[in-house]
Amino acid sequence: MTEFILAGVQLRPRIGDIAGNIERSSKWITKAAEAGARLVVLPEASSAGYVFADRAEALRYAEDIPGGPACSAWAALAQKHQLWIVAGVTEREGGRPYNSAVLIGPDGHVGTFRKAHLWNDEKAIYGRNEAGFPVFDTPLGRIGVGICYDAWFPETFRSAALQGADLIVLPSNWVPVPGQPADVPAMANLMCMTGAHSNQSYVAGVSRVGVERGQEFVGRSVIVGPDGWILAGPASNDGEELLLAEIDLIGSREARHGNPFNQPLADRRPDLYVTRDARCAQNGRRD
Amino acid sequence: MTEFILAGVQLRPRIGDIAGNIERSSKWITKAAEAGARLVVLPEASSAGYVFADRAEALRYAEDIPGGPACSAWAALAQKHQLWIVAGVTEREGGRPYNSAVLIGPDGHVGTFRKAHLWNDEKAIYGRNEAGFPVFDTPLGRIGVGICYDAWFPETFRSAALQGADLIVLPSNWVPVPGQPADVPAMANLMCMTGAHSNQSYVAGVSRVGVERGQEFVGRSVIVGPDGWILAGPASNDGEELLLAEIDLIGSREARHGNPFNQPLADRRPDLYVTRDARCAQNGRRD
Repeated sequence: MTEFILAGVQLRPRIGDIAGNIERSSKWITKAAEAGARLVVLPEASSAGYVFADRAEALRYAEDIPGGPACSAWAALAQKHQLWIVAGVTEREGGRPYNSAVLIGPDGHVGTFRKAHLWNDEKAIYGRNEAGFPVFDTPLGRIGVGICYDAWFPETFRSAALQGADLIVLPSNWVPVPGQPADVPAMANLMCMTGAHSNQSYVAGVSRVGVERGQEFVGRSVIVGPDGWILAGPASNDGEELLLAEIDLIGSREARHGNPFNQPLADRRPDLYVTRDARCAQNGRRD
Repeated sequence: MTEFILAGVQLRPRIGDIAGNIERSSKWITKAAEAGARLVVLPEASSAGYVFADRAEALRYAEDIPGGPACSAWAALAQKHQLWIVAGVTEREGGRPYNSAVLIGPDGHVGTFRKAHLWNDEKAIYGRNEAGFPVFDTPLGRIGVGICYDAWFPETFRSAALQGADLIVLPSNWVPVPGQPADVPAMANLMCMTGAHSNQSYVAGVSRVGVERGQEFVGRSVIVGPDGWILAGPASNDGEELLLAEIDLIGSREARHGNPFNQPLADRRPDLYVTRDARCAQNGRRD
């Protein structure tokens, strides 16, 4: 029996309101636990909101991992309900804020991921990820992590999958993408679907809703199966919501990777790939 | 004036009928030329069909590049109409067949790409690509190439884009994907859309229709803009069809790459990426 229920909590955090965000996220984690979830994924920046004016403001609301208030509250819930939580948190370390996600289990903090691809003015606010894409081996299966814009880089999914990830979770604060047609899934959803399909991995993209200092967020959280098709969601674009999907990370490994002809990971040709900017070499100049 | 019309020709080649396939593809290339196209993309294996029983049969219908019958016919049309053609061709070299695509211009053969990721029993039939992902610098812009299953590997798009490709063309023979929901774009289309969006490159995925020796093909050709949204198509799943889109490879370079905050190619973190199978290293064994 390796199946379990994965929950995605589409939240509406409030900027700077750590106590309120703890209360709100705790209510939803409890709901997920009552629905039988063993793994609960919250959005990016669930502890303190997202649209900080600058590094100083981000730092003011950042917390230590694992001892900060949101992480401590989530750890207490993980212990109480004997489940795992992945949540976006504004981390403080060495006087610097990081846009991070924590994995917390029944026995406490398991690991931290820092956003690898900083989006927009995040580059001026947060410290850089220097540790890559850790994959955490849990009793539920192996879990890789990316945050929001990281999903725009297929290397995020690949780096996790090549280290054996069965599931890639993406705490996110998805924003509108220019030109999005109404009758096509959100571009963020397409990234989750192709990331899952290309890597035969489950993907959970869990986003937030609401408007913060003029920045709109689009919700649309999804849980995607290893075939690339959506198992739960997309959630609405404007409401808090609990997504649930029964998944099987460990028990599905053979079926996911066992096709004798087509195994996207084994069929790769890393000997042929260009992985660094080669425009200078080819053209003598950049455009 | 760097805009031009890109044409995708969704064809129904017949296996072993090289003369008929030349006649049919020539008719469509002429139609595309009459519509003003400067670049015409045909599906994978347009010269001789696709579902060969074995290597010997593929070799029987394979042709030399550039001197073979289909390539010669296409070169004559390219010269006559002063346009470029990318077409899938069953290539013969050194007594071995290859699943290849040729780029032909008004002055003749420009280059050849061999499918990098061999699908299903292609592994038993075709020789391997040992030359990677060439990007061809033409007066229309820089063109990268992949064939069908290559689009399932985001490294295909990335390898082309990192070498400066403005457009990635994918001659394809797309087949049904298990679980495809009716109300979601075909998985092949999603690969084109996310490949375009992640690389800010145009993508033309040109597929075939019909059934060959029991293998169904799904059509659904698309031309996608560098924002990831579809410019033309998806074509039908069962008919020959001409897709046309006005695009601008050279003139759009600055706009595609000029966002001061988010430049998916510049924002990459190749220092963090895992590009080879790391499962043994991490887990001490493979599953």
